[in-house]
Amino acid sequence: MVCCWSLVDLPLVKTGFDLAKIIAERVELLDGDIVALSSSIVSKAEEGPVPLDSFTPTEHALSIAARNGADPRFVQAVLDNSKEVLLESPFLLVERENGHICVNAGIDTSNVGEEDSVLLLPVDADKSARDLQERLKRLTGVTIGVVIIDTNGRAFRVGQTGVAIGVAGVEVMRDWRGKPDLFGKTLEVKHEAVIDELAGFANLLIGEGDGGTPVALIRGLGMLVEESSIREVFRRPEDDVIRKALKGWRGE
Amino acid sequence: MVCCWSLVDLPLVKTGFDLAKIIAERVELLDGDIVALSSSIVSKAEEGPVPLDSFTPTEHALSIAARNGADPRFVQAVLDNSKEVLLESPFLLVERENGHICVNAGIDTSNVGEEDSVLLLPVDADKSARDLQERLKRLTGVTIGVVIIDTNGRAFRVGQTGVAIGVAGVEVMRDWRGKPDLFGKTLEVKHEAVIDELAGFANLLIGEGDGGTPVALIRGLGMLVEESSIREVFRRPEDDVIRKALKGWRGE
Repeated sequence: MVCCWSLVDLPLVKTGFDLAKIIAERVELLDGDIVALSSSIVSKAEEGPVPLDSFTPTEHALSIAARNGADPRFVQAVLDNSKEVLLESPFLLVERENGHICVNAGIDTSNVGEEDSVLLLPVDADKSARDLQERLKRLTGVTIGVVIIDTNGRAFRVGQTGVAIGVAGVEVMRDWRGKPDLFGKTLEVKHEAVIDELAGFANLLIGEGDGGTPVALIRGLGMLVEESSIREVFRRPEDDVIRKALKGWRGE
Repeated sequence: MVCCWSLVDLPLVKTGFDLAKIIAERVELLDGDIVALSSSIVSKAEEGPVPLDSFTPTEHALSIAARNGADPRFVQAVLDNSKEVLLESPFLLVERENGHICVNAGIDTSNVGEEDSVLLLPVDADKSARDLQERLKRLTGVTIGVVIIDTNGRAFRVGQTGVAIGVAGVEVMRDWRGKPDLFGKTLEVKHEAVIDELAGFANLLIGEGDGGTPVALIRGLGMLVEESSIREVFRRPEDDVIRKALKGWRGE
């Protein structure tokens, strides 16, 4: 049986706070547990809110901002955190340095806690996850997995769902190819992105808004592995039909 | 606390089997429980495997089959189950009658159990879910929610994840707009597709292949509602940038 819950009575986290200590004080961790955290609590503990005025818009940012009705400083923050822009309008869809594709480079204006500031995603969320895993190991002696999640939109379907953006010690992709099906026939094409199935559910447990409890614990799932990286889920550009179609699209 | 598990010792389901009875015999359901089922077990209990020879390929199907290296009868089955073809190659991406967009119209060649046959998705999976919900209510007296899931690929990310294709009595979309964030600021744009976050996790519990246990139970999540429909998640074509880009794309 798998059991999961979100941690309560978390403090409002600020730069430099020790997330591992905060978690370890609130739950007795067991070997094999998975800790899922929203990207925003990790960002707050690491870099903290960044004032929008620290981004000086270029001509390019000003032009996108005018077209999309956005704050030019916010657009500049997105461009500064992007390796490639896949779509400029009606919204900014970009690829971040590590290969993660998302709207607005995942930059958040909600739950920031400071006026006219934004929260950037952790620069290297795999590293953030590994650091937290190691620190929890030192504090508690147990080996757990860590998943850092953000919310993303999807093709064809309304609404956002939680996806993983950083991982430590948790299985990312399950490969069913070559395994027999119920009747002994060999499964042909089947990769299951188990990390995102986990991340979505953790996002459901965590919630948004003012009832937000940005850390969830999942017990009994048995997905721990020695090493893993979120890069395993990023599709190669040459295999990505939707990416190609977006690049070839000239808009409406 | 949320607890979930997959049911064991399910029989190999054939056309006409009573899924509600099979489930009720294996778990003591409580009010508020959510039963998640793979689309394939529902299809097996409803229509059952359909011989590929019952699909006579048109010229159109023959041409797509040649291009994609697919069985022309399979291609015809996909076309017969599609309202619109969004992409013909390198794979068939279509919209089904009810608005669900997926590869190969969700038609399955694995775990079918009969040679040269396929499993079609349930014609109206919302109705399948409602029927099961009502039958379980009659058998056990308790009110539960039902989610029927399938696996879909995603844009930009490798691997498939579970998504909901039919629902009865479970919340589909959570609207956070207008709600205060942690600091009292109003959240602007935020729809959370909670049904797919649930479906993904249920898919993780269920598994594929010969260890498949195609029914999972989720207890303690508290997402039951009076009425719901999977149609709530289908994006309107006029709002769908990726659909427009795919339609305008002329291929490589």
